[in-house]
Order: sequence, then C-alpha cells, then structure tokens
Amino acid sequence: MIENKLREIDLLVTADHFLTMEGDGVGYRYRGALAVDKGTIVAVGSRANITARYISRQHLDYGSNLVMPGLIDAHTHLKLSLLRGLAQDVSNWMMDGLSPFLSSAPADPEGLSVKLGLLEAVRAGTTTFSEFSPDLDIVGEIFKKVGIRGVLTAFIREAVHRRYRPGELYIYDPALGEQSLEDACSTFDEWNGEADGRLMVYFGPQGADFAGKDLLARAKAEAIKRGAKLHMHVQQGDRETNQLMMRYGKRPIQWLADIGYLDDQLIAVHLTDADEEEAEKVAVSGASMVVCSGSIGIIDGIVPPALAFQRAGGIVGLGSDQAPGNNCHNMWNEMKLTALFNKIRYHDPEAMPAWRVLRMATIEGARALGIGSVTGSLEAGKRADFIVVDLSKPALQPVHLSPMRNIVPNLVYSARGDEVVTVVVDGQIVMENGKVRGIDKEHVLREVRVWSQNLASASARSFSTLDGPNQRYMLDQKL
Amino acid sequence: MIENKLREIDLLVTADHFLTMEGDGVGYRYRGALAVDKGTIVAVGSRANITARYISRQHLDYGSNLVMPGLIDAHTHLKLSLLRGLAQDVSNWMMDGLSPFLSSAPADPEGLSVKLGLLEAVRAGTTTFSEFSPDLDIVGEIFKKVGIRGVLTAFIREAVHRRYRPGELYIYDPALGEQSLEDACSTFDEWNGEADGRLMVYFGPQGADFAGKDLLARAKAEAIKRGAKLHMHVQQGDRETNQLMMRYGKRPIQWLADIGYLDDQLIAVHLTDADEEEAEKVAVSGASMVVCSGSIGIIDGIVPPALAFQRAGGIVGLGSDQAPGNNCHNMWNEMKLTALFNKIRYHDPEAMPAWRVLRMATIEGARALGIGSVTGSLEAGKRADFIVVDLSKPALQPVHLSPMRNIVPNLVYSARGDEVVTVVVDGQIVMENGKVRGIDKEHVLREVRVWSQNLASASARSFSTLDGPNQRYMLDQKL
Repeated sequence: MIENKLREIDLLVTADHFLTMEGDGVGYRYRGALAVDKGTIVAVGSRANITARYISRQHLDYGSNLVMPGLIDAHTHLKLSLLRGLAQDVSNWMMDGLSPFLSSAPADPEGLSVKLGLLEAVRAGTTTFSEFSPDLDIVGEIFKKVGIRGVLTAFIREAVHRRYRPGELYIYDPALGEQSLEDACSTFDEWNGEADGRLMVYFGPQGADFAGKDLLARAKAEAIKRGAKLHMHVQQGDRETNQLMMRYGKRPIQWLADIGYLDDQLIAVHLTDADEEEAEKVAVSGASMVVCSGSIGIIDGIVPPALAFQRAGGIVGLGSDQAPGNNCHNMWNEMKLTALFNKIRYHDPEAMPAWRVLRMATIEGARALGIGSVTGSLEAGKRADFIVVDLSKPALQPVHLSPMRNIVPNLVYSARGDEVVTVVVDGQIVMENGKVRGIDKEHVLREVRVWSQNLASASARSFSTLDGPNQRYMLDQKL
Repeated sequence: MIENKLREIDLLVTADHFLTMEGDGVGYRYRGALAVDKGTIVAVGSRANITARYISRQHLDYGSNLVMPGLIDAHTHLKLSLLRGLAQDVSNWMMDGLSPFLSSAPADPEGLSVKLGLLEAVRAGTTTFSEFSPDLDIVGEIFKKVGIRGVLTAFIREAVHRRYRPGELYIYDPALGEQSLEDACSTFDEWNGEADGRLMVYFGPQGADFAGKDLLARAKAEAIKRGAKLHMHVQQGDRETNQLMMRYGKRPIQWLADIGYLDDQLIAVHLTDADEEEAEKVAVSGASMVVCSGSIGIIDGIVPPALAFQRAGGIVGLGSDQAPGNNCHNMWNEMKLTALFNKIRYHDPEAMPAWRVLRMATIEGARALGIGSVTGSLEAGKRADFIVVDLSKPALQPVHLSPMRNIVPNLVYSARGDEVVTVVVDGQIVMENGKVRGIDKEHVLREVRVWSQNLASASARSFSTLDGPNQRYMLDQKL
C-alpha cells in the first residue's frame, strides 16, 4: 500500500455485471464498480480496485443486477405521442394516416405528449433524447425538470402545411421559412447549454423537400456559427425523392451533395429510399445516420441501409421516431427490430448481431449525435448516465457466464423495458421503481383523457372524409 | 320485466373495454360483461344486459382495463428455455448454435426449463401452450399444477442424434423410431384429457427429414385411431429440403402430399423454405399453419409465407418456438414481428394489419390447433380463458375510442407483456400481479443458477471446438 490516501467522491456504484461499452466491444466486467463525482465518472474498474482508491459519500450496490450506459434515442417526435395508434396499417402514412388527426389536434400547452412519451421511454431506460419538433420551449422545460439529457432540434421548413395530392409540388412560403429559422436561432440562444449542459440545440431542416436551397444554406450557416449540428430527415421516402426529382431532377442525396450538405455536421435520419450506394456516399462524407427501424417498418415496409452505412465506416444510432407510426418509444424494441430486420434484408442470421445493436443504442447513438465524449459509455471523464437492469426477470434468465456469456443476446432479443429498475443521468436518479421524476403520472393520464375527448370531436370529420383501411376497419369491427 | 328470475352463476367479469374476437373482427365492446359458470362462459354482453339476467357469487370488476381472450402460443419448445441466449447470430443454427449446448446440457428432472418459460410467458398473457418435446410427463405435471391449457405434442423421430456434416444424409434407426412412437402412444393414454380436459396430446413427427415413410404412416394411423392431430415441423429450412431431395428427389411439401400427409389433421409449423405456391398447396389441403416469426427471423433471416397461406384460405397461428433461437416466449413480440415482417416481405404497410395478428394470437391460433370451439375467443359455450390488460400503462395511452379506436394497434405495436395484470384459465386465476400460480420463482432462479454452473463445465469443450461467430465474439469482448 504505497498510496493509502483515498480520494473522496460523491457516489460509488457496484453490481455483479457491467457492460461499459468501452473499446469496440461491450466492455463486460464481472463485479465492477463506478466512481462518480459531481455527476462525472472518475473511474471504472473492478470493485476491489475502485474501493481501494476511493471513499464515497453514497454507495449504490445493485447486487446481481446489470449496470450499463443509459440508452440513446437518437430521433424522436415526442410531441406526437398523443396520436399513438392512429396511423398504422396505412399506405401514404403522412397524408392519409397522420394528417387527418394532426390537422385537427387540440393544443397541448402543458406538453402532455412529451410527458406521456417520457413516462414510457425513461421507464424503459432512455437517458438521452434527440427531439425534433417545432416550439421546443415546453420540451426544454420538461426535459430540464425530469433531468434527462436532450438534443433539441429546432424544426425548419418553408413548405406550406396542407394536404398535397400525389405528384403535386409543395408550395414554398419564404416567410414561413424565415420565421422557422429565426425561431431556431432563438431556441438555440435560449436553450443550448441549459440544465447544467444537459440540453443542446441543433438545427433541423425537416427535409430537402420541405426547404429550398437558400433556406438550407442559411440554416447551415447559422448552425456553423453556433457550433451546432444539422439533424435532418434524409431521403425519407419515395415522396421526398419524387419532390426532388420534380424540382431539381436529382435524387435527394445527390442534391444534398451538390449543395454541400454532406459532411460531418449532418445527422441523416432514415435514408428510407436510399440505395446502398447512396448510403455509402453519405457515410464517407462523415455524416452520421439514425435508423428508425420500427417506424420505417410500419410506415413503409422498408429496412433502411444501415448496414451498408456501417460497412462504409459510418456511425449509426437508433431512433424510435413517433407514436402514430412506430407506436412506441422503447429502445429495446428498436434494438431487436434493427437486428432482425437486417437479418431479413440480407437473408443472413449473422447480419447485425446483438452486440452491434446494443452499441448502436448506446455509444454509437451518442457518437451519431456528436455527444460521444459526454455519454453513451461508462468511461472516466464521461457524465454518469447509466441504467440498472434486473437480470432476475425470467425473460433474462438464465445468466450464463461461461463458456459463452448470454447477457447481450438476452438484452437485445428478450428485454422488454420493464427490466430497467433505475435510471441515472448526470449522477442523479431520474427513474426508480417505475416512477419518473418530475412527472405526475395520474395527472397526465387524467388530462390525456380530456384531450382525447376533444380530439374525438375535432377529428371526426377529417377522419371520416377519407376512405382508407382504418376507416373500413372501424366499420367492419376490426378495431 | 317479464323474466325476473335471475340465473345464478359463479363469476361475473366486467370492465370498460372488451375484445371478444367474435365474428371475423375483434368484437370490441364498451362496458361489457362476461357471465361464467363452472369455468365456462355462459353469456357475453353489455354490462346492463348481463347483470339483468345473472346473479353471481363472485364479481371481478376490472374498471378501465381491457378484458380479452388469453393468448395462444401455438408452437413452443419450453424445454429449451435454459439455453436462452446461447445460439443467436449464427448460421447453421441447429448444428453450430444449439448443438454444442444441447449435446452437453445437464439433466433437468424438475422441469426448471418449463417453469422458467412459463414464468415469462404466463406473466405476459399466454393461456394455451402447444409444447413439442420428448418426455412430456414433467410438462404435463407442471401445466396441470399451474392450471394452464396445453396441447402436448409427443416427439417422434428415427434419425440418430449426432452432428451431421452439411450434405450428409441422416442415419435412421428404426428402433429409435419405434420407441418414440410407443412413447407417444403412452403419453397420449396417460395425459390426453387430463387436468379437467385442459391437456390434450397430439402426435409430433419432428419433420419429414427425421422420420421415414413407414414411421410417418404409422404415426398418422395411431393419431387417427385416437382422434389426435399431427403437429409437425414442415419445410423448416433448406437443410430439410436438402435431406428430402437427397433421399426422395422431392421437396418436402410434394413428398408430404405424396404420402397423404396434407389434410386437416396436420398442423404445419414454419414453412420456412416453402414458396408461396407450396404454402397455398398446404393451405388448400385443410392443414393449418403456425408461423414463428421471431424464431425464423433470428435463425434464418426469413419471413415465412403466412400471408400466402391465409390468402389461400388457410388458418395461421403464432408460435414463440424456443429461447435459444427466438430468445423469448412473449406473444406480444410475435404479434408485432409478424405484422412488421410481412409489411417488409411485401413492401406494403397495409399487409398484415394489427387486428389480423391479434386474431392469429387468439382465435386463429386456437383454430390452428383444433381447439377453436374451446378457447381463443370470449363466446358463450367456450371455456373462460381471458386476460386483463392495464390500459393505463403509458405505452397503451391514450385510449382513443372515436372516430378511430386505437386499442388494437396499441396492443400489437406497443404492448410489451407487463401490461397484463391478470390471467384466467377455465375461470381460475393462474397469474395475478406478476405471480404465476404453482411456481416458486425464487426456488426456480436458485436452481437455474446451479444448472447454469453445471452447463458451464459440461459445454466448455463442445463450445470451444467450434470456430463460429459467438466463439469469436467471446474473444473480442463483444459478449
């Protein structure tokens, strides 16, 4: 014992099993420990090593459970949670599924939608949300109160909101674009760095079809000025491709390349309608990708080229997107779907193994968002964002350690979300035993009921004037 | 009030929401009621109607929750639950994934595997299991004790168990076949009709590649004699196709047609390697199909032709298969994967809508198993097998009733299993608040730990002699 002066820290975390996501694997440690001080991880190691070096004011011992990084949901529209379950099983999702409800939705000044989404997602272990929406003030306030980490992406668009016929070019209103860019700048000024740095603001052109060349250029310039990333839907469907072909005679990725959008400032979401070559083009530019497997599976019946993106050296995160499409904000669901969809796309059971999607939901998601030095793995110098998973749940049993550890496949292929017992962000507990800090669940459910009744009368006409599958299913007692 | 004499019954069940699965839809009823007597549903209707006709000794009111039929898992190998998570992300699943562990697995005389599987599955709402395995006595005993409904399928096979090289014809041992058929007959005699009729026994040739023509003919004859169905893996992969091509020069479905196996006695599981025409051939024969989407997705990266089977008029149920492949026994998982996989297979978001897979997990699953008159829907004359789903869970909120009800899409696309609060079979509660009747969870987990340690030493050699992806992932810190 040459050194026997112990460093004093705020928090010691111990458990039988750790997945730290260090290196290029999952960083499994048996009987590990985290030393945390002022919300930052100061050391990770064996229990013996850490307790020999640190003395802590608080000790959280999670026994035979698992400690791992908090999950990163790299693309959400939590503001749509109140429309859950209303737009599935429909072709032309945006116009025939979502639009009848979105166009008539009552106001939600209290942010019930965001609260409902967080009740689901934080409960299931998500610690970082990358929320893409207009009017981010309420989102910022709720995120701050709950204590989670957030990348708030301010919505920029100049295409007029209205129902377009297939093949009809969107109408641009430059004043609308101007206003949304101004709003984005003021959202940045107000929220970036807030909540002890847990909140950041990025710039979010809704898509290359929703904003013209000038607006895109100005959005990029304003983002560069502020050191912010561009978080954007890219080639999100044949609708977008058609718009760009009509307007410019180019497919979206070629168009974005031509206007200088493909570089490491870009977080490209979806790539639904991109072929492998286009995905590679984006990847080699240094841009990152977010794949929303559940959402695009339900909305389009498509598996986006995430694997081609990775093979070209690109970083891919996972996103739950929104509840009227994907229907849920649960990263375990995204992991499993991403692994299985890619096995199916490539007709290869070895494609997209469990460890790979677990990394995509943690460290690679953080890197895709440009916050890989802050969160996504348990390493000295990063903030203490972690979750505790109860491995005694039957779906995660048995725990085999040798000759093959099965913890990672069990998490990816069997965990449902309710196995998460504790969620910690910046060293602070934000969820424990099913309770999310700062959100009064009973109050939210009561208000949601009222909102739903208001939606019923407001949307009756816009729903019934369409003759889609869900209209027919209602008549046929299939809903 | 012409009739004011009330009929006395054992149990009245009321709730705000019912999905009865009556007719060809989902049978939604607002403020419904079930009248149950001696474990049988005697009436279903509005709360007002039922309470005007019946007086009950017990009243279970589930408030704003949902009552729906118990889920039917139409194909399981619960006996493999102890190998969960050990054989994913591997090509040649059976030989390189499962076999190293299965060949060395310690005995499990107490049925820990079955108990572990039930702890997971009953908790998530499964009331009927169609278990396919050798040595069914322990399965029958556990099913009886827990009180669930079971179709026990006795395993018949004459192919010698050993590692075969790709392209090597399986060796048949007629004595092995004889013994397995004898065992099947005595399993039938012992267990069919047991547990107040909740248990039935079917005959289960493992596959057309594992049993020759004579044994298949004798199995069918013995099954006919007893009024039992044949529950069998059919065209479960290219491995099976190759065996049949080598042996008979025919693909499996043609071979089964030629030997008279395609008829309404057959429950055909998987059809992994069947094309649409072959699926249609099986469907029009009157045979039913069980699709195990999660399992076949992970093991083969394939979406079987369930939709083609349905379009040809066939009935399709869902199966969770086994934990070393699919990894879980959770019918919500199967519903979601089946819907999404088919949208992807057909590149069509309208393919396999939510209501359809909900029917496959309930009434169509029951019909596929030949027990559609007993369970699978809530209708007078059927046994009272139902589950209660807590609709206040955030993932199932909001509940919109008008202009479109979103309960069915929310169940299929968002429910994870922990929303099930009560499970009832034959009018008796078998699961409540997470506790499964007749299984001591703590005892099971303790014994599972011991078993896992025994597996570690027993399987060390058989695992390490292979050079597959999981062996490499262990070395590379990816597990």
